[in-house]
Amino acid sequence: MNVIKDAVHGNVRLSDFELALPDTQAMQRLRRLKQIGMAHLIYPGANHTRFEHSIGTMYLVGEMAESAGLGRHEERILRAAALLHDVGHGAFSHESENIIFRRTGKTHEELGWEKVRKGEIAELVHGEGIPLAELKNAFFGKGVGELISFDLGADRMDYLLRDSHSTGVAYGVIDYGRLIHTIGVNARKQPVIEYGGLEAAESMLIARFLMFASVYYHHAVRIASAMLRKACGMALEDKTVSLRQMAGMDDEELMRVLSEDKRSARLARRLRERKLLKRALQLEAFELNADLKEELSDIRFIERLEAEIAETARVPPDELVVDFPPDYSKGRTSVRIVHRGVEVQLRDISEIVKAIEQAEQNRRKLIVACAPEKKAEAARAAQRILAGLT
Amino acid sequence: MNVIKDAVHGNVRLSDFELALPDTQAMQRLRRLKQIGMAHLIYPGANHTRFEHSIGTMYLVGEMAESAGLGRHEERILRAAALLHDVGHGAFSHESENIIFRRTGKTHEELGWEKVRKGEIAELVHGEGIPLAELKNAFFGKGVGELISFDLGADRMDYLLRDSHSTGVAYGVIDYGRLIHTIGVNARKQPVIEYGGLEAAESMLIARFLMFASVYYHHAVRIASAMLRKACGMALEDKTVSLRQMAGMDDEELMRVLSEDKRSARLARRLRERKLLKRALQLEAFELNADLKEELSDIRFIERLEAEIAETARVPPDELVVDFPPDYSKGRTSVRIVHRGVEVQLRDISEIVKAIEQAEQNRRKLIVACAPEKKAEAARAAQRILAGLT
Amino acid sequence: MNVIKDAVHGNVRLSDFELALPDTQAMQRLRRLKQIGMAHLIYPGANHTRFEHSIGTMYLVGEMAESAGLGRHEERILRAAALLHDVGHGAFSHESENIIFRRTGKTHEELGWEKVRKGEIAELVHGEGIPLAELKNAFFGKGVGELISFDLGADRMDYLLRDSHSTGVAYGVIDYGRLIHTIGVNARKQPVIEYGGLEAAESMLIARFLMFASVYYHHAVRIASAMLRKACGMALEDKTVSLRQMAGMDDEELMRVLSEDKRSARLARRLRERKLLKRALQLEAFELNADLKEELSDIRFIERLEAEIAETARVPPDELVVDFPPDYSKGRTSVRIVHRGVEVQLRDISEIVKAIEQAEQNRRKLIVACAPEKKAEAARAAQRILAGLT
Amino acid sequence: MNVIKDAVHGNVRLSDFELALPDTQAMQRLRRLKQIGMAHLIYPGANHTRFEHSIGTMYLVGEMAESAGLGRHEERILRAAALLHDVGHGAFSHESENIIFRRTGKTHEELGWEKVRKGEIAELVHGEGIPLAELKNAFFGKGVGELISFDLGADRMDYLLRDSHSTGVAYGVIDYGRLIHTIGVNARKQPVIEYGGLEAAESMLIARFLMFASVYYHHAVRIASAMLRKACGMALEDKTVSLRQMAGMDDEELMRVLSEDKRSARLARRLRERKLLKRALQLEAFELNADLKEELSDIRFIERLEAEIAETARVPPDELVVDFPPDYSKGRTSVRIVHRGVEVQLRDISEIVKAIEQAEQNRRKLIVACAPEKKAEAARAAQRILAGLT
Repeated sequence: MNVIKDAVHGNVRLSDFELALPDTQAMQRLRRLKQIGMAHLIYPGANHTRFEHSIGTMYLVGEMAESAGLGRHEERILRAAALLHDVGHGAFSHESENIIFRRTGKTHEELGWEKVRKGEIAELVHGEGIPLAELKNAFFGKGVGELISFDLGADRMDYLLRDSHSTGVAYGVIDYGRLIHTIGVNARKQPVIEYGGLEAAESMLIARFLMFASVYYHHAVRIASAMLRKACGMALEDKTVSLRQMAGMDDEELMRVLSEDKRSARLARRLRERKLLKRALQLEAFELNADLKEELSDIRFIERLEAEIAETARVPPDELVVDFPPDYSKGRTSVRIVHRGVEVQLRDISEIVKAIEQAEQNRRKLIVACAPEKKAEAARAAQRILAGLT
Repeated sequence: MNVIKDAVHGNVRLSDFELALPDTQAMQRLRRLKQIGMAHLIYPGANHTRFEHSIGTMYLVGEMAESAGLGRHEERILRAAALLHDVGHGAFSHESENIIFRRTGKTHEELGWEKVRKGEIAELVHGEGIPLAELKNAFFGKGVGELISFDLGADRMDYLLRDSHSTGVAYGVIDYGRLIHTIGVNARKQPVIEYGGLEAAESMLIARFLMFASVYYHHAVRIASAMLRKACGMALEDKTVSLRQMAGMDDEELMRVLSEDKRSARLARRLRERKLLKRALQLEAFELNADLKEELSDIRFIERLEAEIAETARVPPDELVVDFPPDYSKGRTSVRIVHRGVEVQLRDISEIVKAIEQAEQNRRKLIVACAPEKKAEAARAAQRILAGLT
Repeated sequence: MNVIKDAVHGNVRLSDFELALPDTQAMQRLRRLKQIGMAHLIYPGANHTRFEHSIGTMYLVGEMAESAGLGRHEERILRAAALLHDVGHGAFSHESENIIFRRTGKTHEELGWEKVRKGEIAELVHGEGIPLAELKNAFFGKGVGELISFDLGADRMDYLLRDSHSTGVAYGVIDYGRLIHTIGVNARKQPVIEYGGLEAAESMLIARFLMFASVYYHHAVRIASAMLRKACGMALEDKTVSLRQMAGMDDEELMRVLSEDKRSARLARRLRERKLLKRALQLEAFELNADLKEELSDIRFIERLEAEIAETARVPPDELVVDFPPDYSKGRTSVRIVHRGVEVQLRDISEIVKAIEQAEQNRRKLIVACAPEKKAEAARAAQRILAGLT
Repeated sequence: MNVIKDAVHGNVRLSDFELALPDTQAMQRLRRLKQIGMAHLIYPGANHTRFEHSIGTMYLVGEMAESAGLGRHEERILRAAALLHDVGHGAFSHESENIIFRRTGKTHEELGWEKVRKGEIAELVHGEGIPLAELKNAFFGKGVGELISFDLGADRMDYLLRDSHSTGVAYGVIDYGRLIHTIGVNARKQPVIEYGGLEAAESMLIARFLMFASVYYHHAVRIASAMLRKACGMALEDKTVSLRQMAGMDDEELMRVLSEDKRSARLARRLRERKLLKRALQLEAFELNADLKEELSDIRFIERLEAEIAETARVPPDELVVDFPPDYSKGRTSVRIVHRGVEVQLRDISEIVKAIEQAEQNRRKLIVACAPEKKAEAARAAQRILAGLT
């Protein structure tokens, strides 16, 4: 039995096959992708990678499979799918994913499956006797594969624990032992929670909400992400880099390309030297009308807003960004819980889950950030323009 | 500088005065009072005491005082008050407190102040030059003393951390460093939270809710507490022990007295050997009508219910208990938070705090427990009698 | 599958049989025995009990059995033996054990086996189909039972982790996952370490050494233990309590008896109120000659020394104690390690293990302690008398 | 007061000056230097950087200064020096340092001071009113600056804790609170330990030894480092990169240059894809004679050995490396400890420290590693050639 020492889960045991998968070229690349994009600029310990997260997700889904009484065959498939689930991610994880998805409609899962279904990985999978179709289902989170991807799944469980471990923000430290113990599968092999696990389930949803509020949607993290988004857009327009190339890059490779493009170079340098743009204006979601919130979810609207405010305020385009975070939960937690023998939705019986969904919506912030010396002008321009929209 | 090693906070520094206080007889008694009454029967590690909790509370309120910019004088008083705040507790902490309060109207604070205001402790306080009146204010949680006792105060902060540490239930592990950093005092020296601490504040209220659900209000913990309550009532009625004596006892002394009284002996033995009564019926708060919930908050009503069910089910009085937990938060979280310069109540701006208040109410359970071999009869009797009440 | 939440190991799974064993009367008694006797007077968090330690030891030996590839049958027996291994302990664990052993020659294991081989426990064991002879072997640490009791066994591993957790002294926090992974069994089913586990093995022996230095042999802990030893001796001589009775008592029962005996009452009160005797003289082992060290290992010699110093210094017998800790490792670590295919003793290839053995010997301290106001006289008398012996 | 959230120390408070220093270009570069070079290839969590370590070292030396009773002025200087102490490090920290030192005789401290004494950092230092000469002393670990750099100093304390946190290897988790409490300064402002801190001091030296054995000198980590050393040597010889350039590079920049040089490209690719060379031969230090050990400490001797073995075994130069770790402690721990009023060297009174020094020497391993398919030939050749040398 092979062992990898993980910073979060300790000694993780792996079969020979599970040890060979991470040594493929596509998986090794994940070593060079930070798990939470730009957060390291605010939380200096946040240097952990998609690579370690992949191993941790494999570990946790294995624990779930065992606890839920799944057989050896399904456990093997789930662990392989968990190990591979992020292989399609690009530089800075979600940052490049959004850029690519918007322009190609391809998710990181779809890009990832391209890397799994043929070549080095496919050969290992074949050699292990795992049917590719079953792996695909699990990879895309279908059926029993939901154990990896659902709202209380191994993917989220690992990243909450790991992001807490690396940032020092304790909110993600959940009692995963207790939670895993209460996750089972129903007749259709979908994850269900026992009623006794109600608070354990809530605690994980709360943990995620708190991590969003403190880390993922920290205003400076969002500003850095918006700067990266803008720089990538410039380099793509200039054809300094193609979408296809971008999808295969790691964090440092992307940063280098951005610093070589004429238009994006200054933004790249700002990111590299942590000269972040500063908040000129911040509005909370509840201060915005519904139509505006709707429009703000379209990145093209954001870009037009950026252009208009920059022009009005006479700020160069690379010195102003606008950000409004997506409604990540899309308003609907989906967790089955068995109450007195009946499967119901957790959100339908938990005041707390409903409150979290609301809070997630309400606490998003619209941020206009610019070079520090232009704050007054940018704020004025932004207020005027937004007043016309609200 | 003296140092005590604490299991939760590590090296805690104390002045000579702060080292002398715990060595008084009244404080040493706290070594023999478990922090969370009967919980050790369910969570075997829950053997921590009011003594260590007192030291921890002193440490935390000192950190708060420093962070809030209070002076050395106020910090000294707050630390002394925190160290002494539980000196009036009786055996198994809240268990005996409820019994004594119901019959005398005295809280553990009032009983405690009797021990502080004269004798050994008062002499030390005098020697240290601390005005007794100022200590009294802090001791009763008035003014700046709220830092000890308010909903995010040092008392709760320490017990959440410590109960988590000893039970292994992780929910109480909050980021107290972050929270303390955001607690200040207003012009009237009352604690206020900065808006930036919104999620930190919520996280502590959530932690408390989750600890209630998992530990303090765990059904078996509640059953053991009800057994103790019943046994104490019997021994008091029989005059085997007086209220005054009970107030001065430690856990083991009380258990011994209960095992010597003829009527309570069997209950005491059950507790000692962990032969707990078992649930015959459990109803959730939302299944009860408002009037019944109201009545259930009166312990005399509970006792009449016990008697009636026991008689109907032909179960001896010491083999049946009824429990319905009090609404511990009394429905109203009170935390001041400063939003855009204005002090508002946290509950007025947080969907999550409101949801917790609701959930606290709704998730209380009415439990009827009895000797295992009488479950069927007790359930039937309880259902019939409760049907008449609902 | 049943689960107990442990403060150290988290969710511990148990079979129905393993859940029934702790509910026996003999095991429940362990809830009232502190794991490290008098240490709670110095480390206020050290209130953990033999009960939780027994569950933890069961958990760890199960992990070892699995890692070493033992079968289900042997694992079941090992876990049962581990769960029961301390059932014979008396009040304050080792304190009463020493007293009883000295007068009866019986170890706590022998006393414990009496409780296992018949009655409630034996019936459960029989019902589970476990042969009593095999359980006995494991219980006494023979054969595969060494996994519980050897120098790197589950017993020590658990108490190091648990004592660290409760005292806050971090030295006992070892990487047990790594260590367990390197423990196997040889052809005779005895534990052996792979060479790759050299440092893991050393780290545990170091941890134990450091815990001795900081906790178990802390001078104030030793003084409190000596006070208890002396008080017990008085109460036994006075026939206020018999050895047989003492063996069945829990911590608080013993303290009560000691406070009822005329001669030991003052010592009992000192312990209860933490008015410990204070060091009048302290000599390090290397300052003593070999003959004296030899004699000091006999408790009767210590007692004569106490009497002589007290008389010379005109100090009442209950205000002076002498202590010299036993050489707990008896100078010889016994751990098999496989180096290039050959089984050797760890101490023969590790400079570090040899240094620990030496340090253990050398750092023991001879302490003469007395009532604070008699320190000068006691120190003078002790120096004079010891000078005649050295 | 500003706060940075650190993964290890939690909320770290900083003055405005201390917040401005990390935002300089020279300090930001440390974000892109892994703290422990190649260890992340074996411990996937080891992605932490010199940047976070610098903040942690500042925090710890501040705690030390406060505990030792130094004044505000000295504390400020120590904290600044600690924050800056690694600013001269090159790619993969010690890997590039060795290469540069060997060719220029310059340590990373000397290179670092160049960056401190003028430019952006010097301006901030000047603005804060800190005399550059005093900062220089502290920076080079002179006088009170020893608190940063000595064997129990803040630098080592932080890296042990941080490397444990990121690798998951628990050995480095020491009780720094206890240790800091026992560190004072003597009349010449040099660090001294109280005798009561004997075991705390030993525990840190042990922790470091165990971390060396498990992490820093893990055979695969050493092989990866040797591969990097060899690749750098080739790129330097080929003048693909200059020493001066190398000194200013970060990890990924160096890897890119190595992959662009014709001769080093294959080694760079092996490192990137984790196709490490494998052990063909491993000898322990005690199997080598003294002369050979002496010679092996010269990197030029190692290189000649590599060339000779590769030629004999007919292995291409980039498929074979030889490694023998330096004697990192240079055989002499230097820690002052006060025993009965006299300052002595810790190593003179601690059997354990002496044993560690020996073990450090003895457990170094001479490793010959090569492409997996050439192991037999390489082993044969290495054995023959070494036999001639031993």
